[in-house]
Amino acid sequence: MEFTVKQIAYVLGGKVEGDSSTTINDFSKIEEGRPNTITFLSNPKYEQYAYTTKASAIIVNKDFKPSQPIKATLIRVADSYQAIAKLLDAYQKMQPKKEGIEEPSYISKSAKYGKNVYIGAFAYIGENVTMGKNVKIYPQAYVGDNVTIGDNSTIYAGVKIYKNCKIGENCTVHAGTIIGSDGFGFAPNEKGEFEKIPQIGNVVLEDNVEIGANTCVDRATMGSTIIGRGTKLDNLIQVGHNVQIGQNTVIAAQSGVAGSAKIGSYCMFGGQTGVAGHISIADKTKTGAQTGIP
Amino acid sequence: MEFTVKQIAYVLGGKVEGDSSTTINDFSKIEEGRPNTITFLSNPKYEQYAYTTKASAIIVNKDFKPSQPIKATLIRVADSYQAIAKLLDAYQKMQPKKEGIEEPSYISKSAKYGKNVYIGAFAYIGENVTMGKNVKIYPQAYVGDNVTIGDNSTIYAGVKIYKNCKIGENCTVHAGTIIGSDGFGFAPNEKGEFEKIPQIGNVVLEDNVEIGANTCVDRATMGSTIIGRGTKLDNLIQVGHNVQIGQNTVIAAQSGVAGSAKIGSYCMFGGQTGVAGHISIADKTKTGAQTGIP
Amino acid sequence: MEFTVKQIAYVLGGKVEGDSSTTINDFSKIEEGRPNTITFLSNPKYEQYAYTTKASAIIVNKDFKPSQPIKATLIRVADSYQAIAKLLDAYQKMQPKKEGIEEPSYISKSAKYGKNVYIGAFAYIGENVTMGKNVKIYPQAYVGDNVTIGDNSTIYAGVKIYKNCKIGENCTVHAGTIIGSDGFGFAPNEKGEFEKIPQIGNVVLEDNVEIGANTCVDRATMGSTIIGRGTKLDNLIQVGHNVQIGQNTVIAAQSGVAGSAKIGSYCMFGGQTGVAGHISIADKTKTGAQTGIP
Repeated sequence: MEFTVKQIAYVLGGKVEGDSSTTINDFSKIEEGRPNTITFLSNPKYEQYAYTTKASAIIVNKDFKPSQPIKATLIRVADSYQAIAKLLDAYQKMQPKKEGIEEPSYISKSAKYGKNVYIGAFAYIGENVTMGKNVKIYPQAYVGDNVTIGDNSTIYAGVKIYKNCKIGENCTVHAGTIIGSDGFGFAPNEKGEFEKIPQIGNVVLEDNVEIGANTCVDRATMGSTIIGRGTKLDNLIQVGHNVQIGQNTVIAAQSGVAGSAKIGSYCMFGGQTGVAGHISIADKTKTGAQTGIP
Repeated sequence: MEFTVKQIAYVLGGKVEGDSSTTINDFSKIEEGRPNTITFLSNPKYEQYAYTTKASAIIVNKDFKPSQPIKATLIRVADSYQAIAKLLDAYQKMQPKKEGIEEPSYISKSAKYGKNVYIGAFAYIGENVTMGKNVKIYPQAYVGDNVTIGDNSTIYAGVKIYKNCKIGENCTVHAGTIIGSDGFGFAPNEKGEFEKIPQIGNVVLEDNVEIGANTCVDRATMGSTIIGRGTKLDNLIQVGHNVQIGQNTVIAAQSGVAGSAKIGSYCMFGGQTGVAGHISIADKTKTGAQTGIP
Repeated sequence: MEFTVKQIAYVLGGKVEGDSSTTINDFSKIEEGRPNTITFLSNPKYEQYAYTTKASAIIVNKDFKPSQPIKATLIRVADSYQAIAKLLDAYQKMQPKKEGIEEPSYISKSAKYGKNVYIGAFAYIGENVTMGKNVKIYPQAYVGDNVTIGDNSTIYAGVKIYKNCKIGENCTVHAGTIIGSDGFGFAPNEKGEFEKIPQIGNVVLEDNVEIGANTCVDRATMGSTIIGRGTKLDNLIQVGHNVQIGQNTVIAAQSGVAGSAKIGSYCMFGGQTGVAGHISIADKTKTGAQTGIP
């Protein structure tokens, strides 16, 4: 990309202070600024870098009052954090998109898919799979029999989705995550050996769910393990069988939710949190890192 | 499937109360019952749903005394939980089984395998691999050189088994699990840099072991890391080099066992448990979730 | 392999006590010694086994004074642990090495690679990838667009490296590890839904880094997540976006480092440690297992 500060300010609805003809070709963090990059100042802790950064432009809040001279051109906006997010988003949308079917891939004859899909090399699409338009299946991903994937969802490299699971629209699942592995259900017999309880349910991801890398979501024994609309899970998280998570809940990395727990909507859990099985957690519950909820 | 309640009661050795000609075509949880499904009541906490469920049949214990009228047909058995498990098992055995060799797959010329195996597309079978009968290797799994896999074992999609490891009979390894990665062994040199201790041992899973998804079992420095007969490991567990776990031990998700620890038989560990290295844990030890055993 | 004790002592610069013509064809642990194997005694806790081991030779420290007769031939050296490590290393270097390109694999036309590379079956090499000499890419690994991998680095089966990441020389990444997945960055909008902050940075592994199995290293929002030269990470570790880890730091399994944390050089963290975001940790910091650093 290459834009002038003036063009960027126009997109953001911001006001330029300084040289508006400077060209910008990349982003940088304020403390690592390089010429011809744009950065932003939101957290006041980083103000010191505004006076020394080598970035050519800084997005700042409307009411920012510098205490020293600043070399970089400023773009004043209502909310500098939202503005940089908007700019990053526009930038990412300009990147070339993967599309088409790479060979060799394995697509069963009974699978159906919409327009503009990407199916990477070594991806496996099982029997009776249905995928909407703009779905992206990266290389080496596995989509088991009877899985459905809604429009605009992205399944990154090496994700494994077991049979009968349902992925909504606008979902993103990062590399190495496992959806629909068996719940951990065993019953001891009279010899003290464990016999497996078959796990015949599935996993349902509602729309707008994002799941990080190497996370596991187990299938239900019967019925469904459900991740609600708009919920975001980080990396290396364990979600047990028959768990239900509400909408717009955010769970940080390495947390675990044991079987049949119900978690409300709008919750936020810190990293390495543990939630016991068969309990209910109210909407809007927040926990710090390494909390145990027994 | 479609069976009458009478047929199901016959299989379970149970006694019918109500309409024995009702047809059943699926399972449901008692609180989510649907017409023409069968459910069960074992935990008394769920008794309330017996009076409202829309399931057509409920498996109950012989001595269950309803306090209100129940619409569903009852099947009375000695142990309702074991009965539903038996029924689920019968159901699962009726499902179509994967069999044969999908293309493209990579099978070295020196590999040997028994009757009725399944080798999925993009699976990799290294030199001198030996696999028994009815072994299932799902797509994108990796079986390194000299690995042996016993009869009736199932290796799900994307599992990676490093060279020289041994998998027993009737084992199940879920997607994304890594068997035989190097133990974490480094020795500092005089400059404070870490030099690797080569890890030349292997991993042995004895018979009837089940391992969940995205778990890691490291190979031994010398000798073997051993998971004993009938032991069950959940998802995202770390098993360090030279660990020995006894028989019929059950370890819940996200637990970690550091190098050279010895864990007895018939132990049960809650989720996110940590076991320190070089210690011994007695048979039948039980821990709650998030326990540390230093 | 098959060597006499005399030959081995010569390589180690050690002094033989006992029959120097005994042949050695494998390694064993002292408590599991077998005839014609060599073992070592370093930790005094294991001295008792020196008197009963069936191993044919034991590497011991120069000043070791047996309190009972020993059947095995001894090799006395300055440091028995370093000596066995050296011997294991020599042994491993004698093992056959993977080389060449297996089919089917997917190598973009714009990818470049040096001499003596190994690219396993079902590996995926994206656009503009550059790999040095002696690089080994095991089966089913994914190397995204514009990734660079330095000389002598090994990427094991099923590793996924997202686009634009940089892997140094002499690095090892174990199976199932994810490099460059999106950082966990979302901002709530006025409806309480979470909008994604695009993650356009990358991950840099400097030279001599080793990463275990099923670990996740997230890409930076902007700039780079950096793992310093010589640092070693174990299995199932979470490294958040924009984290910086110094040189020769060692982190044990299942630890997590939240976004933007800075960890110094020569640190050692026990297993299941949690490090909060946006903090700095001094050089040479050591923590026990299950520590939280808020």
